[in-house]
Amino acid sequence: MESEGGPFKGILRDIEGRRKCYKQDWILGFKTGFRILAPTCYIFFASSLPVVAFGEQLSKHTGGALSAVETLASTSLCGIIHAIFGGQPLLILGVAEPTIMMYTYLYSFCISRPDLGRELYLAWVAWVCVWTAVFLILLSIFNACTIITRFTRIAGELFGMLIAVLFLQEAIKGLISEFQASESEHHDKSGESDFLWVYTNGLLGVIFSLGLLITALKSRRAKSWKYGFGWLRSFIGDYGVPLMVLLWTALSYTIPSKVPENVPRRLFCPLPWEPASMYHWTVIKDMGKVPVMYIFAGIIPAVMIAGLYFFDHSVASQMAQQKEFNLKNHSAYHYDIFLLGIMTLICGLLGLPPSNGVIPQAPMHTKSLAILNRQMTRKKMVKSAKEGMKMKASKSEIYGRMQTVFIEMETCPPQVCSVAADLKDLKEVVMRPDEGGDKKGKFDPDVHIEDNLPVRVNEQRVSNLLQSVLVGLTLLAVPVIKMIPSSILWGYFAYMAIDSLPGNQFWERLLLLFIPQSRLFKVLEGVHASFVEIVPYKVIVTFTLFQLVYFLLCYGMTWVPIAGIFFPVLFFLLISIREHLLPKLFDPLHLQVLDAADYEEIIAAPIQHSSFAYRKLGSSRHLSEGEEEDEFHDAEILDEMTTSRGEIRIRTISLKEARLESEERRVTFEPH
Amino acid sequence: MESEGGPFKGILRDIEGRRKCYKQDWILGFKTGFRILAPTCYIFFASSLPVVAFGEQLSKHTGGALSAVETLASTSLCGIIHAIFGGQPLLILGVAEPTIMMYTYLYSFCISRPDLGRELYLAWVAWVCVWTAVFLILLSIFNACTIITRFTRIAGELFGMLIAVLFLQEAIKGLISEFQASESEHHDKSGESDFLWVYTNGLLGVIFSLGLLITALKSRRAKSWKYGFGWLRSFIGDYGVPLMVLLWTALSYTIPSKVPENVPRRLFCPLPWEPASMYHWTVIKDMGKVPVMYIFAGIIPAVMIAGLYFFDHSVASQMAQQKEFNLKNHSAYHYDIFLLGIMTLICGLLGLPPSNGVIPQAPMHTKSLAILNRQMTRKKMVKSAKEGMKMKASKSEIYGRMQTVFIEMETCPPQVCSVAADLKDLKEVVMRPDEGGDKKGKFDPDVHIEDNLPVRVNEQRVSNLLQSVLVGLTLLAVPVIKMIPSSILWGYFAYMAIDSLPGNQFWERLLLLFIPQSRLFKVLEGVHASFVEIVPYKVIVTFTLFQLVYFLLCYGMTWVPIAGIFFPVLFFLLISIREHLLPKLFDPLHLQVLDAADYEEIIAAPIQHSSFAYRKLGSSRHLSEGEEEDEFHDAEILDEMTTSRGEIRIRTISLKEARLESEERRVTFEPH
Repeated sequence: MESEGGPFKGILRDIEGRRKCYKQDWILGFKTGFRILAPTCYIFFASSLPVVAFGEQLSKHTGGALSAVETLASTSLCGIIHAIFGGQPLLILGVAEPTIMMYTYLYSFCISRPDLGRELYLAWVAWVCVWTAVFLILLSIFNACTIITRFTRIAGELFGMLIAVLFLQEAIKGLISEFQASESEHHDKSGESDFLWVYTNGLLGVIFSLGLLITALKSRRAKSWKYGFGWLRSFIGDYGVPLMVLLWTALSYTIPSKVPENVPRRLFCPLPWEPASMYHWTVIKDMGKVPVMYIFAGIIPAVMIAGLYFFDHSVASQMAQQKEFNLKNHSAYHYDIFLLGIMTLICGLLGLPPSNGVIPQAPMHTKSLAILNRQMTRKKMVKSAKEGMKMKASKSEIYGRMQTVFIEMETCPPQVCSVAADLKDLKEVVMRPDEGGDKKGKFDPDVHIEDNLPVRVNEQRVSNLLQSVLVGLTLLAVPVIKMIPSSILWGYFAYMAIDSLPGNQFWERLLLLFIPQSRLFKVLEGVHASFVEIVPYKVIVTFTLFQLVYFLLCYGMTWVPIAGIFFPVLFFLLISIREHLLPKLFDPLHLQVLDAADYEEIIAAPIQHSSFAYRKLGSSRHLSEGEEEDEFHDAEILDEMTTSRGEIRIRTISLKEARLESEERRVTFEPH
Repeated sequence: MESEGGPFKGILRDIEGRRKCYKQDWILGFKTGFRILAPTCYIFFASSLPVVAFGEQLSKHTGGALSAVETLASTSLCGIIHAIFGGQPLLILGVAEPTIMMYTYLYSFCISRPDLGRELYLAWVAWVCVWTAVFLILLSIFNACTIITRFTRIAGELFGMLIAVLFLQEAIKGLISEFQASESEHHDKSGESDFLWVYTNGLLGVIFSLGLLITALKSRRAKSWKYGFGWLRSFIGDYGVPLMVLLWTALSYTIPSKVPENVPRRLFCPLPWEPASMYHWTVIKDMGKVPVMYIFAGIIPAVMIAGLYFFDHSVASQMAQQKEFNLKNHSAYHYDIFLLGIMTLICGLLGLPPSNGVIPQAPMHTKSLAILNRQMTRKKMVKSAKEGMKMKASKSEIYGRMQTVFIEMETCPPQVCSVAADLKDLKEVVMRPDEGGDKKGKFDPDVHIEDNLPVRVNEQRVSNLLQSVLVGLTLLAVPVIKMIPSSILWGYFAYMAIDSLPGNQFWERLLLLFIPQSRLFKVLEGVHASFVEIVPYKVIVTFTLFQLVYFLLCYGMTWVPIAGIFFPVLFFLLISIREHLLPKLFDPLHLQVLDAADYEEIIAAPIQHSSFAYRKLGSSRHLSEGEEEDEFHDAEILDEMTTSRGEIRIRTISLKEARLESEERRVTFEPH
């Protein structure tokens, strides 16, 4: 992060920094050709499905005032704007849970006020958006982003956990509602909503939602399956969830024809070209009708929303730019917040819920681009190296060839990044003198390039733009989306909740509390977060319980009808608690580990070693077999190295002592 | 197995051998006191549930001529007889799948013959049983058991796989039938069998059966869970499946009252005191009515059944006496087959389906007794050793105390087993001179007794007798059993099928075929059967494909209406194929590994090592914490060391070369 500075300093620096590579961002994107479609589709599916789900949730909570149509429109619109004018093009935008929550509170407030009511809801919210925009722009002008370093793990994970629990709550509520006759059905012609059919609908709901949940969770892990071919596993791993939604939706049409067509219940959202949706383009006209007092009352929620957006957007952007991705282009936190303000304004005036940076899609985007780049570069390098070796070229020649390839694939201006430094290891391997017969010493392009190729991300704007356009096109597909049974959506919410937990250290520590100390060896056997070894068990427990209490406080707050709107306050409070109170209660070292910026893991050394060793074997053998195997292989490795939140796992090998002198480790868990 | 000998030699030798310890078998059982109830209940639940399931299957296939009442009666009756007069009291008896299959074929034959028909079914089957008894007795007289060494893995696993597939088939058929109106419902008063309710019934069926299947599979693994206390995990691990049946049955009563009481459909079996059941006691009177020609025709199925029983009974007995259990008392294969003949005769005349030795209950029984014994002995030994150390006794004194304890716990006459030999390791540890400060060298009762205590089984007849009596008492509980929804039973069949697969090398090799060679490292990383390392991939594939084809042949045979009765022929054929043909096709070494008598596994060394290290840590820490933890712990270890089939896994540590020089391993998988 840059150091402080006068107003506008941050924004200007960002603009200056991005200007340098703006043209490049486009050229490179198009240069990549069709292969750019892989990450594009990947991100499109990863971000469109939640947006639809949120849309349905929103329409449920706002009496249909907003629906999937608006969330899709907003996501697409903001995405396109950001892809073209945005600072960090790797950042993915979308309508996310904070928006849904806030909009729900605002709605319940509105309908409780006769002089606002359902009619003026969107108009009033438009005012709230105006204020939010103002605050966001102010934040960016005064370089507020310099403080995002203080958003430590604890706040992020608390928020993540809260959202997970809310998703689960949504899923359960939804499933129960499947057993109740919905109002809509009373109005509908068939009128077949007697107990019997509702009950059948409920049972089908249980089957579909649990079915989706389980199959989605399984397919998510496809890449590490033992069985099936690489390309198949990686395909299922990347597109498994949408596939499962498709599959279960298809299954929902196999039920006997004697069942009335409103069983199972399906998504309920208006078509984009129906008046219900058209109204949104005229919201701006109603803004004048909002009583002045409420216009100013809008400042209160606006502060909260601005805060949440600022937090969410910056963290998402941060995750998309983790240092392990080894990005070369300038960051643009300040400018992006400024732009977010503008986009919030636009959405507000159009009666759309605003979008902001989303996790895990943002880091997923960067990751997929890294994989793409790796695949392309590596193949070329191996090829050239092998040619070199065929024609018995000298080592330095062989290295030279590879370097040339690397440079021509290079995405960033030479003055920024030094190829020499990045290729140091590789050069070292190539140049290494062979020791007699020892096969290991010898340079093997397949294996060694694989190992020593630095991570490079294909930084460009095309994939982001295209995926936003695709999201926009889904608006035309709404008639198809309406075919999805609502119960599948409840299953999907449960899936999102459960899938977001692994990698969340708060969650992992909660689980730890349920492991009797005598069983902790089970944890140590496997790959485990470093805190398990470094921090004494007792401290872990205290810290986690503190977090749990605080979490329950936040969760409880969301239940309070309208005051719930203040729950973001608790987050900002937490940030200062972390800064001023906690260091007094905990040993700074422990605190640092428990609240580390990175997700550091300790490998259960031996097994993992061999595993990696085999992988290399594996990959080197793929190359001879067929390339999709080998491409998939990059995907798998990078995939296994990130948490579901999109965080890169830093794999450190456990200290020998820690591993061998088990005595010591025991001591770690002795409560003292 | 004993060497050949004249007629009756085997039987007499067995009787002689068992006579020695017969009294002991009872005394020891009662001496154990209430603790004997643990293995008793364990086996009771493990064997009663399948018997009920088979009963339901039987009544479905024999038009209600036989039902759970008869299977329970037979299991209890034969169990009691075997517990009192049987040779090997560790062997558990029950009505098993072979009986069900044969009885099904016989029924379909009967109803196809007007002069037999449903009326004379049981009478004719009684004749078949008479013949079967004759053959079994002849087999035992002529020491046929000496050939059971030729029943290699290949036959046993083929049979196991066949049964698994038949279970799965049963489950699927059953689940489909839930969607069809059953005949019974046409007759029943409520007559509510219109499409709607049948469909609801089907949906509930899907939920209950899948629910049971999944929860049962999960709870089965409870012992290795990370979370929860040891006693809880071991309880769930041991009784999880019956618990789940209970749970889901309870859930089936939570459905709204508006649903008619025949939805969901529940088990259909007459009460033991209803005429339908009473008839069986009079079957013998009808035997005269059977046309002579059919009496002799009965010889054909009798040969098959005798063959199957001989095979099944001996293998089950063998499994209950695996050498790792380190049993001390004389085996009694010949005599037990003789007794099986008698029991078959009795059952036949009473119109009950006969019982025979069952897998995995038989080995489970021995295992649970081993655990029991281990827990009791160890605690006493640790106690005495600690006392000794407190009073600063000399090493030899300490060892002396432990030996005394061991001897007084000893179950077998000293002339048979040498305590000295069994306690060699332990003595060695105790006597080891301590090296200065090195804590590891010092003798720690908790850890070292745990490690060096030899496996001893509490060989007695009480647990077997009690569990048989309990099975008998369940007859009174039939009204309760009738409350179980049939769909839960279908789930249970699927569970039995899936649960029986791991440990079946034929299955494991089939899976291997779906692993691309480049992924085989995944298998090698974990604990894996030794053949994976020793036998070349290509050979594994050929051998497995041969097995698969042969399996499909057998499976196909079971589909042939009446000729299906001849499917056992294929097994006996296989045994001679294995003996004469296969050695010509495969390298004897490979064949020996692929068709090994034991289930040998290679440990993915490092991780397992540490894991064991930790276990010891763990256990030694339990001791201080509370005993149930530590008792559970024995259970867990012995449990993890047996396959679902009840086979002991022999854990050998992979050769260093194999682990480190991965090059070599690669070669193993290179098709050559």
